Amino acid sequence: MSVIESCKKAKAVKYEAAALSTDQKNNILYAVANELVSSASDIIEANKKDMEKGRANGLPEGLLDRLMLDAKRIEGIAEGIRQVAALPDPIGEVSNMSRRPNGLMIGQKRVPMGVIGVIYEARPNVTADVFALCFKTGNVTILRGGKDAFESNFAIVNVIHKVLIENGLSEDICTMLTDTTHEGAALFMKQREYVDLLIPRGGAGLIRSVVENANIPVIETGTGNCHIFVDESADMDMALDIIENAKTQRIGVCNAAESLVVHENILDKFLPALEERLKKVSLFADEKAISLLKNASPASEDDFYTEYLDYKLSIKTVKNVEEAIAHINEHNTGHSESIITKSYENANKFLDGIDAACVYVNASTRFTDGFEFGFGAEIGISTQKLHARGPMGLLALTSYKYIIYGNGQIR
Amino acid sequence: MSVIESCKKAKAVKYEAAALSTDQKNNILYAVANELVSSASDIIEANKKDMEKGRANGLPEGLLDRLMLDAKRIEGIAEGIRQVAALPDPIGEVSNMSRRPNGLMIGQKRVPMGVIGVIYEARPNVTADVFALCFKTGNVTILRGGKDAFESNFAIVNVIHKVLIENGLSEDICTMLTDTTHEGAALFMKQREYVDLLIPRGGAGLIRSVVENANIPVIETGTGNCHIFVDESADMDMALDIIENAKTQRIGVCNAAESLVVHENILDKFLPALEERLKKVSLFADEKAISLLKNASPASEDDFYTEYLDYKLSIKTVKNVEEAIAHINEHNTGHSESIITKSYENANKFLDGIDAACVYVNASTRFTDGFEFGFGAEIGISTQKLHARGPMGLLALTSYKYIIYGNGQIR
Repeated sequence: MSVIESCKKAKAVKYEAAALSTDQKNNILYAVANELVSSASDIIEANKKDMEKGRANGLPEGLLDRLMLDAKRIEGIAEGIRQVAALPDPIGEVSNMSRRPNGLMIGQKRVPMGVIGVIYEARPNVTADVFALCFKTGNVTILRGGKDAFESNFAIVNVIHKVLIENGLSEDICTMLTDTTHEGAALFMKQREYVDLLIPRGGAGLIRSVVENANIPVIETGTGNCHIFVDESADMDMALDIIENAKTQRIGVCNAAESLVVHENILDKFLPALEERLKKVSLFADEKAISLLKNASPASEDDFYTEYLDYKLSIKTVKNVEEAIAHINEHNTGHSESIITKSYENANKFLDGIDAACVYVNASTRFTDGFEFGFGAEIGISTQKLHARGPMGLLALTSYKYIIYGNGQIR
Repeated sequence: MSVIESCKKAKAVKYEAAALSTDQKNNILYAVANELVSSASDIIEANKKDMEKGRANGLPEGLLDRLMLDAKRIEGIAEGIRQVAALPDPIGEVSNMSRRPNGLMIGQKRVPMGVIGVIYEARPNVTADVFALCFKTGNVTILRGGKDAFESNFAIVNVIHKVLIENGLSEDICTMLTDTTHEGAALFMKQREYVDLLIPRGGAGLIRSVVENANIPVIETGTGNCHIFVDESADMDMALDIIENAKTQRIGVCNAAESLVVHENILDKFLPALEERLKKVSLFADEKAISLLKNASPASEDDFYTEYLDYKLSIKTVKNVEEAIAHINEHNTGHSESIITKSYENANKFLDGIDAACVYVNASTRFTDGFEFGFGAEIGISTQKLHARGPMGLLALTSYKYIIYGNGQIR
């Protein structure tokens, strides 16, 4: 089916999805979870085709690992869907209802966004994840996954369709685009007439392409050039623990630390201890810092703009918290930044001055995550300021409308 | 100065604007209001040049009227700025602060959007208005007004610059683009690197062009193909009062009614009374309705999609509330819709089923307005679902960041 035809069909069922009760939505989500587990062998069969093609095409090991599905991973996907089913449904809540002087009662009612498109890479778990979050909030989903996961995505969407149809609903509530060409993606991004929101999930290149080309409102997600500033008064052990955690606990994630900013007065004590602690990490340091390190390379200006997603860390020396804030605001991607300090004044300056989705005092940047924030789910981490910022839970997939109760008011 | 240079300079001062205290911002707004009044003769002089050029270029009377400034209108503009100064400052408020199981305290802090660009037509009052709203919320403003108001806008921005400089601030906090070509506007819309939010204020053509061409996040505003549905059980007098108000109180505004949807069972009683009441209004009616009207023309499918902004009204007959909802959702622009009914069930169906920013029961659509909603200000009326929907007050010009207090937490 053509991209535009698919988008039209998706839009045509958006009021069907929006009208579902919480019970209906939850029952269907539990049924999808169960059906995924009982169809595991079909899904694994489909996944094998993707894996074979991926190996033949020379896909890197990391991507193959993200692509691979087995019984345990499918159980994990099903469990994720059950968790979404168990969350409170935000749709229908009315807030800020108040009475105007003329007697009109005006309130905001939480409603679905409508049709949500998600463009992502070859990670079949995202297929089920995104459907669950969008469906729970009464939205229609249009999935445009990477072509390397086509068979796996198709098998998962088949299960979802089966359950939707068994429950008397239109399968178009979960639409998968079968055109996986670049032209197809480019066309999809222009369907503002049919799609209310577009979320790219993937690497920096994918996100840039969506942001540049879409005419649909986009939420930019994911890129994280996260900093940790070690202030003069920092507790050294705490700083080392946090940096080790933020840099090395998982290197490929957007909330991992990529750059260290260090107060010049503690360089000589702190840097040797840091090097001792981060043995697996290559350090790229500025002029002041490099002389105190045994194995560091000189940092270029490029290093300070780089999200390594690797065992690499850049190091910048600053005179004070103001310089740290200016350096971070210049180089960051608006994701997560942390200060390690004992100073009340500097903690507050950092919290006020840093322009990012999440600003930490004395904690690891790795906590920037929908589950860690208590949302019970996550559709991504927004690095823009419009609509949603930081980890996005179910609320980010909703909008509101004003409802107004009158009894004949005119102006 | 080139568009890009202006955008760079604006971005360079965004932390200066964000750091201002509420008192500083309010004092400057009051000073701008006073200075506008005391510079009225200079502004009127500049406006005369625009008016002369406008007349020579054959600008329609309506546009000339919106362009014209006199002492009374400048006092009105100043009063608007004072009202914004008197509003509560949303910046800095922390909400939803809660403690996670690991002891992290996580809350959302209200922050400015950053740099806000506004593209608008030849209405010099918008220049002062937009600056006041953006400045009150700690944002930098980039103004791109219509070329027909260039001299007037320049004079107003000069006053703002004078006050900013007198208060030790950078004049770039209020930047006016001097390139008023179409190419300049097209270039401006692509400056995502420097501009955080773009708001078009003007006619449907301007808004469409911004939505199609911008890579900056946009809030779509303004177009209103608003409907009133007269249900079978409607109080006829109330319906006539509301329709007369919504259609004729001001015809050129986006919250004016453009289309009537009538229950088929009341056509014969209601339509003659309507025609009697709306003597100045040309009616465009469907087949069932037209036979009951003396002077109506047949409505084409195009009529039902048209925002007339004129003494014209389309009329559609429906069998029931479900058909009314479907017709409205198909033809509306997501602005404001009203049902006139005595039925509890149908009122609720309408409130649930209509997809629009503002859904009314028994009231005029003309109330869709930031002042009528009690926001004390309005930057526009959003017809999209992302970020802000309906009348936008100060909050729509802000974002939030998560602030997280830890004491050494790692994952």
